[in-house]
Amino acid sequence: MAKADALPLVVLTEQFAKLPGIGMKSAARLAYHVMSMETQEVEEFAEALLNAKRTVHYCKCCENLTDQTLCPICEDEERDHGTVCVVENPKDITAFERTGEYRGVYHVLHGLISPMHGVLPDDLRIRSLLARVQAGGIREVIMATNPTVEGDATAAYVSALLKPLGVQVTRLAFGLPVGGILEYADEVTLYKALENRNEM
Amino acid sequence: MAKADALPLVVLTEQFAKLPGIGMKSAARLAYHVMSMETQEVEEFAEALLNAKRTVHYCKCCENLTDQTLCPICEDEERDHGTVCVVENPKDITAFERTGEYRGVYHVLHGLISPMHGVLPDDLRIRSLLARVQAGGIREVIMATNPTVEGDATAAYVSALLKPLGVQVTRLAFGLPVGGILEYADEVTLYKALENRNEM
Repeated sequence: MAKADALPLVVLTEQFAKLPGIGMKSAARLAYHVMSMETQEVEEFAEALLNAKRTVHYCKCCENLTDQTLCPICEDEERDHGTVCVVENPKDITAFERTGEYRGVYHVLHGLISPMHGVLPDDLRIRSLLARVQAGGIREVIMATNPTVEGDATAAYVSALLKPLGVQVTRLAFGLPVGGILEYADEVTLYKALENRNEM
Repeated sequence: MAKADALPLVVLTEQFAKLPGIGMKSAARLAYHVMSMETQEVEEFAEALLNAKRTVHYCKCCENLTDQTLCPICEDEERDHGTVCVVENPKDITAFERTGEYRGVYHVLHGLISPMHGVLPDDLRIRSLLARVQAGGIREVIMATNPTVEGDATAAYVSALLKPLGVQVTRLAFGLPVGGILEYADEVTLYKALENRNEM
């Protein structure tokens, strides 16, 4: 923004520009938009920001985000608490819940091991996962991290810690995406699909 | 977001989704990002929102956004207060100021006449422009609204009101954009460029 702009607008623009995926031009557009909102709407927005940050924390059991002691999934007695699906972040839980098929519970690592980016195993919520398994009652842990170098490394690392505890550790299946076109599949995916082929 | 998400997060996501150009997926990503921000950063963001809305209003003279009585441009005695550039919104002022060439002052209409969208002349800041011209001291008014149907109509409407006041009313030149390629210019632009051709 040019120096012709009012200072509080410049400050607000800079705040918007700090958010991921929002550049200076979009930030300026959003700041101008706030000017056109009703005072009450702006107050509701500010309150939503403060309230979310104030009341939302990690679930005591699975490390998902919640404003209660336990998240709704850990609270749900109808779910299978013997199966734990380990994911990178809370957004992945939303993806699994959309399938409507998974009835077990989750554990959120809040990241993947990545020494290149300074993320070491101690930075993730691995210890609370081990404690859950040690407490007993868990039959299977499904490693559902992304099929990337970091996702695979994290899955392998956590798996090596879990196996001595006598729990079954599984990994999501890799193969062709449903509705995908074979011609456009990359070599690694195609190789995995071939390797993991099933009897018809 | 699925019902597995904490309610304050859902509320925050809905607030982000109200902003222009931000869909539900981006809004969820931003809400999760706020969770990873420091409490102090979130408070600064909320305060910037409230402060901008609370302190920024329209300049008494030119209707630009400012947190003072007069905006810095109207305050500036070194500028030519006899030339007024009429623009649709405050963002356009930023664009003109970036050229560094314009030394006059501005007037912001805060919209364009558009009966289709329910915007009538009375919804714009036209009356304060007329009052400025009637007060005297203004030699030229430059209509710098966009070269669109609505921009042209608004320029023509305001111009018809200004001319009886004995002030010179001009319109921005239309033609090929500098660095543009003739082959890709649309017919209307090319026609305008031909019509407004200059002696070399």
